[in-house]
Amino acid sequence: MNILVAGGDGFCGWPTALYLSNQGHEVSIVDKLIRRNWDEELGSNSLTPIATLDERVNRWKTITGKTIRTFQGDLCDYAFLSDVIKQTLPDVFVHFAEQRSAPYSMMDREHAVFTQVNNVVGTLNVIYAVKEIVPDCHIIKLGTMGEYGTPNIDIEEGFLNVRHNGREDVLPFPKQPGSMYHLSKVHDSHNLMFACRVWGLRVTDLNQGVVYGLHTNETLLDPILVNRLDYDGVFGTALNRFLIQAAIGHDITVYGEGGQTRGFLNLVDTVRCIEIAANNPADHGEFRVFNQFTEEFSVNDLAAKAQKIAQNEGYEANIVHLENPRVEKEQHYYHAAHTKLVDLGLSPNLLTDDVLRTIFQTVVQFKSRVLHQNVLPKIKW
Amino acid sequence: MNILVAGGDGFCGWPTALYLSNQGHEVSIVDKLIRRNWDEELGSNSLTPIATLDERVNRWKTITGKTIRTFQGDLCDYAFLSDVIKQTLPDVFVHFAEQRSAPYSMMDREHAVFTQVNNVVGTLNVIYAVKEIVPDCHIIKLGTMGEYGTPNIDIEEGFLNVRHNGREDVLPFPKQPGSMYHLSKVHDSHNLMFACRVWGLRVTDLNQGVVYGLHTNETLLDPILVNRLDYDGVFGTALNRFLIQAAIGHDITVYGEGGQTRGFLNLVDTVRCIEIAANNPADHGEFRVFNQFTEEFSVNDLAAKAQKIAQNEGYEANIVHLENPRVEKEQHYYHAAHTKLVDLGLSPNLLTDDVLRTIFQTVVQFKSRVLHQNVLPKIKW
Repeated sequence: MNILVAGGDGFCGWPTALYLSNQGHEVSIVDKLIRRNWDEELGSNSLTPIATLDERVNRWKTITGKTIRTFQGDLCDYAFLSDVIKQTLPDVFVHFAEQRSAPYSMMDREHAVFTQVNNVVGTLNVIYAVKEIVPDCHIIKLGTMGEYGTPNIDIEEGFLNVRHNGREDVLPFPKQPGSMYHLSKVHDSHNLMFACRVWGLRVTDLNQGVVYGLHTNETLLDPILVNRLDYDGVFGTALNRFLIQAAIGHDITVYGEGGQTRGFLNLVDTVRCIEIAANNPADHGEFRVFNQFTEEFSVNDLAAKAQKIAQNEGYEANIVHLENPRVEKEQHYYHAAHTKLVDLGLSPNLLTDDVLRTIFQTVVQFKSRVLHQNVLPKIKW
Repeated sequence: MNILVAGGDGFCGWPTALYLSNQGHEVSIVDKLIRRNWDEELGSNSLTPIATLDERVNRWKTITGKTIRTFQGDLCDYAFLSDVIKQTLPDVFVHFAEQRSAPYSMMDREHAVFTQVNNVVGTLNVIYAVKEIVPDCHIIKLGTMGEYGTPNIDIEEGFLNVRHNGREDVLPFPKQPGSMYHLSKVHDSHNLMFACRVWGLRVTDLNQGVVYGLHTNETLLDPILVNRLDYDGVFGTALNRFLIQAAIGHDITVYGEGGQTRGFLNLVDTVRCIEIAANNPADHGEFRVFNQFTEEFSVNDLAAKAQKIAQNEGYEANIVHLENPRVEKEQHYYHAAHTKLVDLGLSPNLLTDDVLRTIFQTVVQFKSRVLHQNVLPKIKW
């Protein structure tokens, strides 16, 4: 297939582009490389030293003989986006190209407005460009499990069968997102659902859990192909951040009570889920939602796992509970369906000690690059 | 109370500002007057000849002795908005200042993006300005019944008690809006709900039905105070548009089968509902939703009423069914709760023949101003 990966320079996008290229697909990347600018804005960095996008795709070509075309620009620039679509005529548009940090969106009004405009307008432009240029193209959009929030009922995959006053309907699952970023994803979901209903677009919305790990078979082929790994209080996510804290002798910092429970998945499952969605496209007019995660953990679960694996490797780390910088329930019911991707062939790579050890060893390898002042959260809700 | 009316030059905003001023409140208007520019963009006009905002408030002052301060500018300009809030320190922020036409939002990509950015960023700025400058201020936000779409169950006022797999929760009512404009209102609702939960803001979201009529006691005091009345295919809404069609000898044009059913209310109830909400503010942290309409009608019901009243006044009009320019169900279940405003004291002004006749007589008075080429719908979904 001819696949365009928007945001293909990022943490999920880069390994997805490599994996799909390795599977024999014709892959192009469109990315404005703004994630690298945010490192500069925040005085932060990737734990791993990442090459430029040009260096990355050139090395990929040298090693595998496969070409990944690149287009540098902004999805919010419709002239640019429509030109890219006309040049590539994708069968599948994989859309990772959004500002994806909740704390970044909560820094202040400017960052909230930027996040919502960037994400919503970028996705609106994708909708219109696909509608006008490649109406058969299957849009695979990265959503987030965070769209649902933490309702006191089971979370279903996108839709809920509701019985009310003697009548019945299947309705979009109610959304209670917890940050300006998560709200932007909810807005996208509503816009995409409308586009499917009204214009017959075909969309798979992947409500992804928290991703851990950094390597895939492809990124391990060469140091120039290494993926980025975030550990700072803005872009770092729970498990990766805990392992890095343990490696540098920092306390493992749980926000609040630590009973916050979420869905998690290994990055190697992320890339596989994209392939599964691409191989099994949504129908015309169908807005399809998959919950993309493999296991549920509380933050306390993850802190304990990180502590244990570090200890096995000879690193002692305390677990401390910080005042929660976020407004969220710290003890709550959480149970979310996630069978649709498994039904289509996903074999989950679970969070075993081996997996934890492999991440930890990479972390130790690069720990001299950690900027200690960035590890603690500075942004409050 | 000290009340700031955003969008106070518009169809609902202007009579609301006058009514609240007449009730003794200290009223200010903030408006960028862009609605008047859209008339120019579309080559359209108000059926009634409307004065400038300065002429309007000056005449109001002359007649009643009451001052309405005005600020001309854009809610999307945060420096401007925060300056207005600092100057006025409102107890109540009434927010009408959005692009409110579904067809306008569906003209093309540019108008869709404009509508969503304008409405979402304007409301985000209101959220941040209130949070930072007047955190006790009660935000009264105009939403729309169109946020709900047409589910096959009863529509409740904002929230739904859900029982699922043996558990229970009260969740936001699922939203299935039918245009890029209606989507922008859904985005606003999610953003506002979050702001209440996280920052303790106090918000009443008025999901308003389709408004008919144009006069209030205050706008009738002087011709310079007359309200605007839209009849074109972009900004005109069902009942008002039908009466104007009948008055100029045009067919009454029903879109599709005409079974589309919606909630409706008289403009004189709109202004009263704002007062009721203001007098009974939401609590800190409360996101409160009222469904603001008084009666349900199908489009066919309204066409028949318009035809009959026109006939009584000596005007013959045929009812014709056009191919529906919108994507919507033309026969569907519709039943929506609307008791909360009544419980707080609303006495509905229903759609009687007298009410219809009064509107029709105004329409006849100004019918020479109708631009016939604007009456039919030109924008398709």
